[in-house]
Amino acid sequence: MKFIIQKENLVQSVQDVMKAITSRTTIPILTGIKIVASEEGVTLTGSDSDISIESFIPKEENEQEIVEIQQTGSIVLQAKFFSEIVKKLPTNQVEIVVDNFQTTIRSGKSEFNLNGLDSEEYPHLPQIAEQNSIKVPTDLLKNIIKQTVFAVSTSETRPVLTGVNWKIENNDLICIATDSHRLALRKAKIEIETEQSFNIVIPGKSLNELNRILDDHDEPVEVLVTENQILFKTKHILFFSRLLEGNYPDTNRLIPTESKTDIIVNSKEFLQSIDRASLLAREGRNNVVKFSTMGENVIEISSFTPEIGKVIEELVSESVSGEELKISFSAKFMMDALKVLEGSEVKISFTGAMRPFVIHPTNDDSTLQLILPVRTY
Amino acid sequence: MKFIIQKENLVQSVQDVMKAITSRTTIPILTGIKIVASEEGVTLTGSDSDISIESFIPKEENEQEIVEIQQTGSIVLQAKFFSEIVKKLPTNQVEIVVDNFQTTIRSGKSEFNLNGLDSEEYPHLPQIAEQNSIKVPTDLLKNIIKQTVFAVSTSETRPVLTGVNWKIENNDLICIATDSHRLALRKAKIEIETEQSFNIVIPGKSLNELNRILDDHDEPVEVLVTENQILFKTKHILFFSRLLEGNYPDTNRLIPTESKTDIIVNSKEFLQSIDRASLLAREGRNNVVKFSTMGENVIEISSFTPEIGKVIEELVSESVSGEELKISFSAKFMMDALKVLEGSEVKISFTGAMRPFVIHPTNDDSTLQLILPVRTY
Repeated sequence: MKFIIQKENLVQSVQDVMKAITSRTTIPILTGIKIVASEEGVTLTGSDSDISIESFIPKEENEQEIVEIQQTGSIVLQAKFFSEIVKKLPTNQVEIVVDNFQTTIRSGKSEFNLNGLDSEEYPHLPQIAEQNSIKVPTDLLKNIIKQTVFAVSTSETRPVLTGVNWKIENNDLICIATDSHRLALRKAKIEIETEQSFNIVIPGKSLNELNRILDDHDEPVEVLVTENQILFKTKHILFFSRLLEGNYPDTNRLIPTESKTDIIVNSKEFLQSIDRASLLAREGRNNVVKFSTMGENVIEISSFTPEIGKVIEELVSESVSGEELKISFSAKFMMDALKVLEGSEVKISFTGAMRPFVIHPTNDDSTLQLILPVRTY
Repeated sequence: MKFIIQKENLVQSVQDVMKAITSRTTIPILTGIKIVASEEGVTLTGSDSDISIESFIPKEENEQEIVEIQQTGSIVLQAKFFSEIVKKLPTNQVEIVVDNFQTTIRSGKSEFNLNGLDSEEYPHLPQIAEQNSIKVPTDLLKNIIKQTVFAVSTSETRPVLTGVNWKIENNDLICIATDSHRLALRKAKIEIETEQSFNIVIPGKSLNELNRILDDHDEPVEVLVTENQILFKTKHILFFSRLLEGNYPDTNRLIPTESKTDIIVNSKEFLQSIDRASLLAREGRNNVVKFSTMGENVIEISSFTPEIGKVIEELVSESVSGEELKISFSAKFMMDALKVLEGSEVKISFTGAMRPFVIHPTNDDSTLQLILPVRTY
């Protein structure tokens, strides 16, 4: 293998595939980056066996030469060293030559020799047929991920809850995450090429990594699903993730369809109030704050931690309708929800102090956050 | 105690005194910030008993009212909560009222109640007479610290080496740090008001915190020394540190007065070469790189770690004079030294492969870095 490549493109590609690589793998070769030089360009691959990322660097782009392939071939190089080395090379042109697993990286007056590994021993990536695909604009995909993935469970007690449930119903993509104390739901109309339906669970970790790799300006992402794998395809990147096994619980019956108290508040002011109230609550019992309607559209948010002190916040809401209410909930869950909702106002619909309540932006029912209260009053 | 204060000034002051506060103290009251309201303004104090920082907020500055004192008094509040609270308060005006240790912090519609502690139980700061003072411009003081403190020892085997030795000789302030493998020395002409001399050791940790608190635009810092304390005084901040006990070793005889090989290199290029060479060396034996003169002003920097690979860098130096040389040294020590030296070129003076060598900027003998080589050739 022998090629000359533009440093900038190599660095970007290495950075992308590094997102799949962990040093805590039990398969030693997966601590490496697989590099394949073909007639068309250079392909890098990183994987932790749950997530695999393939990044392709074409020979030319926009009529600029990026790679000059002098001899095709492949090698696996230790990711930790290779990624640091390419970043720090002195010149824009980098030559990589492999001779019997000995890899030479040359740039200016700097020459590295790395012991490579046989690329034949690198696991094969899943093969996914092109047939079942949906297309999602990149900014929408990033938004969907952001508005749901934070609510997945971090506990392995019910592994299926560590993922986000994606399903297609009537041309809607519906994405749901819950850790059984709160739930995030996001619906989106999407372009479906053929009659298609799926109901899958994508690991939260995979979606977080995908979100970090996607660039807002990218073209739409093609999404392909098989029984146990999902593939996100952009122009030069293939992002594979395994799917979680098991049936995702039916969450429909959790979401209340009517409400007894409805409150509309400025989202940012409410978030800041909760944030302050939680400053003392964090030390005490589970970061719980109290929320009470006080008449005349005033809301009181408070918390009390005997050893430290107490805080009382008053907030004037846009409107309060329905029954009076005293309720306690996790400040963290409320802040997580408010941070991802768009729009300057949110509507919170309660059905009593012991029932789950729903937060969504006013004038937008594509997204919904649900929180279970905490029993304190 | 009762006063109304501008949030911005309070936040800045709290941030300054927080630099002395640690949660790992054995004296519980030192996890608090002492707040004293006097007729002149508000004084905050933080301390970990090694370092104490006092920050004064005057009633007025530049004809702007900052604090309105309604009742003098004092209290100690948990630093962790107080600092978070003041940062997040909703309005620019903050009212603080103490009634029998119960402290109320009011800002807009937000009201905090914190359990305070008796300020009488807060340790007294050392009293330092004004007589023995030197004045150091802030930017010079920051430079002196930066160019020496990184070289202090991190091991407690010889506690005196965890500090920087400051002494006055013939109107020069001489600052030296060494961990016995490398040494950093910085001299500076300073303004001395009276006939004065001292020879003290300041804990490296104190100097690092001082550096973080000093603002480049500050007026000169007044430095006062007693037997076991040093005080750095700026307009509104008093920074106290205890001194280290014990005699600092005489390092004069360590510094070679002649050389056998002298090399002048571009500081940045050399730093980058060493950085690359150390990428592989870090994993191996102690981050050691090899340095060889190759004739015709060429220097070769290399490292070899059998399990990973090797790297060879060539660097064209400005000049090489004297004997040929092969020497090995810690890449980390060399990079630390190069990072703090000013000027685009450095001169490195060697006296053989087994002797300490000296690095200093060309045309500047106020600062010097010394490194002991490692035996490998």
